[in-house]
Amino acid sequence: MNEFSLIEKYFNWSDLNSTHLGVGDDCAVIDIENRCQLVTSVDTLIAGVHFPLNTSAADIAHKALAVNLSDLAAMGAKPKYFTLAIALPSLEEDWLSEFSAELKKLSTKFNISLIGGDTTKGSLSITINVIGEVDKGRALLRSTAKVGDSIFVSNTIGDAAYAWRQIENGKNPSKDTLRQLNRPNPQIFLGQKLVNIANACIDISDGLEQDLSHILTKSKVGANIDLASIPLSNEVEAYIESSNDWCLVIAGGDDYELCFTVPDENIELLNALQDESGFKITRIGVIDNSCELTRVGDFDKKCNSYQHF
Amino acid sequence: MNEFSLIEKYFNWSDLNSTHLGVGDDCAVIDIENRCQLVTSVDTLIAGVHFPLNTSAADIAHKALAVNLSDLAAMGAKPKYFTLAIALPSLEEDWLSEFSAELKKLSTKFNISLIGGDTTKGSLSITINVIGEVDKGRALLRSTAKVGDSIFVSNTIGDAAYAWRQIENGKNPSKDTLRQLNRPNPQIFLGQKLVNIANACIDISDGLEQDLSHILTKSKVGANIDLASIPLSNEVEAYIESSNDWCLVIAGGDDYELCFTVPDENIELLNALQDESGFKITRIGVIDNSCELTRVGDFDKKCNSYQHF
Repeated sequence: MNEFSLIEKYFNWSDLNSTHLGVGDDCAVIDIENRCQLVTSVDTLIAGVHFPLNTSAADIAHKALAVNLSDLAAMGAKPKYFTLAIALPSLEEDWLSEFSAELKKLSTKFNISLIGGDTTKGSLSITINVIGEVDKGRALLRSTAKVGDSIFVSNTIGDAAYAWRQIENGKNPSKDTLRQLNRPNPQIFLGQKLVNIANACIDISDGLEQDLSHILTKSKVGANIDLASIPLSNEVEAYIESSNDWCLVIAGGDDYELCFTVPDENIELLNALQDESGFKITRIGVIDNSCELTRVGDFDKKCNSYQHF
Repeated sequence: MNEFSLIEKYFNWSDLNSTHLGVGDDCAVIDIENRCQLVTSVDTLIAGVHFPLNTSAADIAHKALAVNLSDLAAMGAKPKYFTLAIALPSLEEDWLSEFSAELKKLSTKFNISLIGGDTTKGSLSITINVIGEVDKGRALLRSTAKVGDSIFVSNTIGDAAYAWRQIENGKNPSKDTLRQLNRPNPQIFLGQKLVNIANACIDISDGLEQDLSHILTKSKVGANIDLASIPLSNEVEAYIESSNDWCLVIAGGDDYELCFTVPDENIELLNALQDESGFKITRIGVIDNSCELTRVGDFDKKCNSYQHF
């Protein structure tokens, strides 16, 4: 099978009406609305680095798109388009069919259209480039946290890292933590709601402390977080109680939850959002003028956050 | 070195003024002009597949961006932005520094800005996603060739394939053919000029016949090309004379020249463009209603075009 029949067979499922869009020319052509800016981000997933080697094609497809959607979520953007570059050691139709079906499912859920791609022979890796839209000047940035802002995170932290730790130790992770590792749920809807509430936002991919530090550096502020207030699942809480290994929570990464800062005057809006929509959001600390990240809690070890090299 | 210091050190050379742009948040934010559409394309280069294993970092950087710029050229687009996803087996600063310098050089030449990236540990591969601009509705497509159009190609065909063939056979390619292989020159300026002249256009990456066939399929037409009229360098011409191996020329690929079709009424415009700008353009055939690609010339073998798997 050549690249063209492969794309035709597995990835030409764009159901857009516009003749200006889609797979099948040198480039895809995109119409843009005047009141918008585009936001774009790229992430590569490599077998054995970003997902365990025996991860299913469906889980890989989900994660490859989800981690990119998570970047759009952190900007408060509306997903619009994505391109897919995939390197495969060989052409296995079962694998591709499973990969393509899951990719289509997630892209349909978040209303994002595949508009271009490239397939190559090589060790398994997937690079997705997402394009989203924000109203002009309304993107949620890392650089706009203010002293006095409360710091929040969505859902629970540490589950994906705990699942991976268990796999590394030859144990079977629970269904729930494995789901967090393989099927992270990008916080697209929360991100869009936060545009009018949060001062700064980032998604947690490399670890809570490292990612929060990016907000601090870019915003030229500090922060104090309370370990005891970080929202944990029962499983991770039990693990921490027995091990005091807080590094798993604050430096484990792969959470794809949002970490964001909210000024006092918007806390009511945030509370109303929680009541209305059921988002699980927890306050974990405060932005201060220390230019450092400090912790409250019985744990003063420096953790090694995820390093790409 | 972590990913952030790596990006800071090697890839944060965007010299754009807009604070809405650039590396350093979850996504890059792009301003779009109202009268424009965006075009986007993605291509991955893998060591040993798309370039010989001993290719220099500078040549890899050049080629990775050039092949993507070539897709923009084929749409008649103006280059605007690109993202870079790079997988590296290890972090070699000399390599990165050479890679980054050449990438900057080529991006400056074509006025395209790096706005996002991802670095991962893995076997060497580079995925670049380019974004360009066209005036609304003015993109050069594959699907709009008309019966009676003349078919043209830019410069000479087959040089890169000849260089690679020689490397495979343990010979040293000439400086000129090696340059075509490692430093292809994307036909951005020609592409933009063709917007008002050509009916259809594609860039030649997988081989002249295979790429021209995409125009034929998308436009639901046929073509007849004259082998003797295909522009060849002296070196490739001598090789063809001794071997009659036309497959190297029509199926070798890696040319990154433009193949385009022009209606009779625009031939004068094309001639004027050649006189004015010095573009080397050669007529190689005509679009017909046969729905097939036929050849004139003493060669009737079916060639195996580049297959991705």
